[in-house]
Parts: sequence; structure tokens; C-alpha cells
Amino acid sequence: MERLYNFSAGPSVLPEEVLKQAASEMLNYEDSGMSVMEMSHRSSVYENIVSEAEASLRQLMNIPDNYKVLFLQGGASTQFAMVPLNLMVNSKKADFVNTGAWSKKAISEAKKFGQVNIIASSEEATFNYIPKLDPNAFDKDADYFHITTNNTIYGTVFKNLPDTGDVPLVADMSSNILSEVIDVSKFGLIYAGAQKNMGPAGLTVVIIREDLMGKAEASVPSMLQYSIHAENGSMYNTPPTYSIYIAGLVFKWLQNLGGIEAIEKINNQKASLLYDFLDQSDFFKGTVVKEDRSLMNIPFLTPSKELDAAFIKEGEKRGFVNLKGHRSVGGMRASIYNAMPVEGVQALVDFMKEFEAAHK
Amino acid sequence: MERLYNFSAGPSVLPEEVLKQAASEMLNYEDSGMSVMEMSHRSSVYENIVSEAEASLRQLMNIPDNYKVLFLQGGASTQFAMVPLNLMVNSKKADFVNTGAWSKKAISEAKKFGQVNIIASSEEATFNYIPKLDPNAFDKDADYFHITTNNTIYGTVFKNLPDTGDVPLVADMSSNILSEVIDVSKFGLIYAGAQKNMGPAGLTVVIIREDLMGKAEASVPSMLQYSIHAENGSMYNTPPTYSIYIAGLVFKWLQNLGGIEAIEKINNQKASLLYDFLDQSDFFKGTVVKEDRSLMNIPFLTPSKELDAAFIKEGEKRGFVNLKGHRSVGGMRASIYNAMPVEGVQALVDFMKEFEAAHK
Repeated sequence: MERLYNFSAGPSVLPEEVLKQAASEMLNYEDSGMSVMEMSHRSSVYENIVSEAEASLRQLMNIPDNYKVLFLQGGASTQFAMVPLNLMVNSKKADFVNTGAWSKKAISEAKKFGQVNIIASSEEATFNYIPKLDPNAFDKDADYFHITTNNTIYGTVFKNLPDTGDVPLVADMSSNILSEVIDVSKFGLIYAGAQKNMGPAGLTVVIIREDLMGKAEASVPSMLQYSIHAENGSMYNTPPTYSIYIAGLVFKWLQNLGGIEAIEKINNQKASLLYDFLDQSDFFKGTVVKEDRSLMNIPFLTPSKELDAAFIKEGEKRGFVNLKGHRSVGGMRASIYNAMPVEGVQALVDFMKEFEAAHK
Repeated sequence: MERLYNFSAGPSVLPEEVLKQAASEMLNYEDSGMSVMEMSHRSSVYENIVSEAEASLRQLMNIPDNYKVLFLQGGASTQFAMVPLNLMVNSKKADFVNTGAWSKKAISEAKKFGQVNIIASSEEATFNYIPKLDPNAFDKDADYFHITTNNTIYGTVFKNLPDTGDVPLVADMSSNILSEVIDVSKFGLIYAGAQKNMGPAGLTVVIIREDLMGKAEASVPSMLQYSIHAENGSMYNTPPTYSIYIAGLVFKWLQNLGGIEAIEKINNQKASLLYDFLDQSDFFKGTVVKEDRSLMNIPFLTPSKELDAAFIKEGEKRGFVNLKGHRSVGGMRASIYNAMPVEGVQALVDFMKEFEAAHK
């Protein structure tokens, strides 16, 4: 069997070039005589790998000098605790927007450490839109303001960032980091699991403004203090070395493509292929309100659950896999991250047309 | 350049067969149409990978049914906090043996959460031996008793486990797990970073007796609660999927070799090659007292710092890398984990003989 079109929500498709390079270097990286997996994280050859990965990410995202880039472990789920443990240090209050299951987990974890104020929610409509925010509801005294920029399960995205003034904006960007141009300076802290747009599961990238570090209580576990990781250049303990290497290859792949401006164009093109088809179809329909549609995760339905199931089954036979939607939304979801080629989306749309003609 | 003999203390050498298989499966794992890195952790093909890895580990270590195996992130450094947060729940006291830098880190972290009683220490002799333990000093009321079974930096190992009675014995086994037969039932909890004898950095294996779970306070971060990971079969969040896959391949490699009994024989053979040479040499000498010598990490010295440096430099030219000792011990250290072939150790000894003859 050849490689399939993999629409998984994460872990998800990686650039074939990256996988080929990783395979070719598996036993002997650049004449080092060993695999990247076998390298001491303190060796000069590995230090090059990690510093190049950071430099690439800084270049791609245009990260200002007063932000640290940390390569951590534990996923967004660990960040759900680490953010409040490090940032909820003054008023011990934080504002949250509830835009889905991952926002809810972040909220639930933050409640262990301070007072959570939910500014707005779209839960009553199965999170199929991003709620309008009333700035009067924002707590000027909050230690931070938390959003989930892209909602993997529901397929929504913040197109406009809330203006939180002096309150640091904190974003879980796991499912849309590196997919479109963002202004890092508008955020106090950005975190993202690698397993969608960056690399293998097990690596978490944190981009944090320096003034937000160093305020955690001494009783916070060392591994959950940003300042300790920053002071040690992400080498307080052994980092997930191989995952950082793969992420570095993905970053270089993006640089060679032309950076975030270039991939954003491609992502718009891919998403338009699918959304334009959904908008003209009277068989398939998208589940998200138009103005909040994600470029990365596109949920859609046929007229019935039976047809949904038939579509997924037939799709698998044709080589389109992981199209089943999350149980809370039902139907289908096409996750079309950076590494999904345009041809993959075009082939999916062609198949949808064919399926519609056969079942309408 | 060919593959070198890599004596790194970790991340460290992996079996060449495992790396070859990983390279060959990088783009398409067993006709799945995708890399293991690209698989949803909820897919049936990935669920097979993780359940086979667990089954292999259970078979290799003969893990009793009343122990859970958890595949986590964050390394031993995270366990230094996670163990007290989950186990220091009754008397809030724990006994520790201080056998090196990693024991000290475990102690320092545990002090954040309760009362630490240091039963014995070998710090006054740069940790070159395992202290004799006086059972009268053990706190019968302690919530657990912590040891570092093998001390990577100093090259010592516990040959006899302390009898802690009803107090659960907790062991950091990062640098000697799977290297020799152990009786899991003597431990309450075993933890180990994967990056020495199991696989890539970024995976932490925890083996925990079921009755020790579920007692953490609700305020403990979810990701630091063993029970949450156990209830979710290590899938509370996205696990480090690729690292688990590589560890599974290493486990199968060990099973094919004949299991832990077989590798223990090989490890004894490798260590004897080096120790026997050190014992008869009047140029090189080991730094550890004989009865506490590790099978995994072997520190040694020449008669001077200048000769140490010359040996390391000349060794690198000959393809023996990462032999420099930790700064606290100086000299050299050969880490000869499971995946270091006998020929690697023999070649090192041959080079040592030659160097001795030339410089004595």
C-alpha cells in the first residue's frame, strides 16, 4: 500500500520530505557516527540541532528578542496547569473564553490554582462559533486572559484577537501554530503541542515573554517552572531530543517553502477548495458559522448518520483515512494541517462530488 | 564515517537492528499508509503498538498483575515531584538514600512536599560506594523509601535492596532498568527515563503497584496524578507515540535475545572485560569500590589529568566517543548499556592496553 491521505486531527500528517530525510539519517546523522536518538543532549552536534531549530522557529514566527522559546514535554495538558502555576501570582484571577473541550480542560485545571472568570462561551451551540467578546466583561486585574486560538474538534478559529490591554494574552495554539501569520508581540505566552503542525507527539513548544517568568512559588515542581527551563536553555533535564530534531526539519521545510506567508496562502487555497464545495452542495454541509471557520479542521455532515458512516467507509477504501468526526460533533472532520498537500484536499473534494452524485 | 562506539551516558546507543527497522518503516508502517509519527494515538494500528510494547515489557520484567505500567513524559525529573505528590499522603514523610546527584535532586524536590529523612549518604567520598544501611534508621511510618538503583555519574549500583517492610520501596531505575533481573514485587514504584536502556528521550516508564494510586490531593495537576494516567491507559493526553514505538522495538529486540536473563549475562561479560582489565592495570584504575560496581557505567582514571585528556582525544580519533567523565568525578566514564555490543567494549579495552603501553 502507498501512503494514504491522512486527515487525522493529531498526531497527523508530516511532510514526506521530512520523513525521507529522517529515514536516511536514522543510523548516522551528518557523519556523526550515530542516530540523533543516540546523541547526548550535551554534545556539540546535538546543541547545533536544537539551536538551529530555535533559530528557524524564531525566523518563521518573527519572535521578538524579549520572548524565550522553550522545548518542553507534557503537551497542552501540562500547560493547562503550568500556565496558572506560573502566571496566577498576583490577583490569582484569570479570564477565559470557553470555545470547546480543550478550553474547558484548561479552565478546569486553572480552577485548582485560582479564580477563573469565563468571559464568554459558545457551548450552547456545540461550540460552532467564536463568541463575540464584550471588553467591559474583561477583568483589568486578571493575571492573564486565556484563549484557544483554533478549536480542533469544532473547527473554529479566532480571526480577531481580543484587546486585553495590559493583561497578558495566553493562547493554546496547538492546532494552528505556524499555519498563518500571527503577531507574537500581542501575546504574553503561546503554547502548542507539536503533534499537529510541528512534529511528533511528546514535544511542547512554549513562547513566553520574559517578564512573565520567575514568579512561581518555590513549592511549584521544578519541571513546571518556566524560569528553570529558560535559565537552562530547555536543558534542565534531558529534552525530547529526537522530536526536537524532527520539528527542526519541519521548520526548515517551511522556510524552504517561503515561510508562514507562503504556507498561509496554501492553507487558504486548501480550505477554500473544501469550503467552496460545501457552500454550493445541497448534500454536504459544514457545521461552523462562516466567519469563524478554521483553516485547519473542517467538520462537515451528510444528510444522515447512515450516509456519514457510508462516506467514511467508502473514503477509507479510497485511501482517505481518519475522516470520522469527533463524537461531540458527529459526521466527518478533515484536518488539513500544513503538511496535507493541496492534491489531498482536491482528491477529497472530487470524492465528495462523486459520493454526492451517487447518494443524492 | 561509519557508526562509532558511543559510550554516552544518555541519550545513548540503541540496537542497530532497531534503528534499521525504524528507518525502513519511517514512511509506511506495516502497510498502514503512514509513519508511526503520523498516527492518531486513538487508531487501532497505534493501539496495537502501545499494547504490544506494554505486553513485551510485562513479559521481560515479569511484572505482576497488580502493577500498572504507565508511559509518561517528563523524565525522572518530573517523577522527583510526582512521586511525593502522589505517595506522600499519610505521614508526609519519606526516607531517602543519598547516592549521588540524581538522588540529591529527588531529595531536594521531595522536600517541597513533605519531610525527607536521609538514611545514609556516600557524598563524603564523591559517591564512590553504596552506603551500608541500618534498618533501625528506617522510619516505619514513612510513606515510602526512595533509592536510585544505579548511579549513572558515579558508576555504583545497589546489589542488595533494603528490606523496607511495609514501607513501599520506590526506585529511580533510569540507568539500569532491563539490564539485570529484578523482582518487581519488591518495589512499590519503579520509574525510569527511556533514554538509556529503552529508547529515545521523552518517554518515562512508571511501574506502580495499584494500591499506591488515587491518593493524591485534588489540587495536584492532573498530569501529575498517576491514577488519571492509569485510568486512561496512558492516553489521558497524547502520549509520546513515536518514542513508545521505538521502546517497543527495543523490548522485542531484548525478547529475541532471550530476555533479561540473557542480556544480564552479556552485561556481566562486558563489564568484566573492562573491570578485569582495570584491576590488573597499574596505569588505569576504576573509581568505585569493588562490591558496588555498576554493570552500566564504569568510571576510570589514568595517572594524570593530562593523560586523561590525551586518552579521550586519541579515543575520539579511533571512534570511541563520549568517554569523558562527569566533571564531579573527572577522568573517563564508559557507559555500556544493553545496546553496546561486546565488540565495542573489547575494542575499548584493546585501545586502553595500547594507550597504557605507549604512556606508562
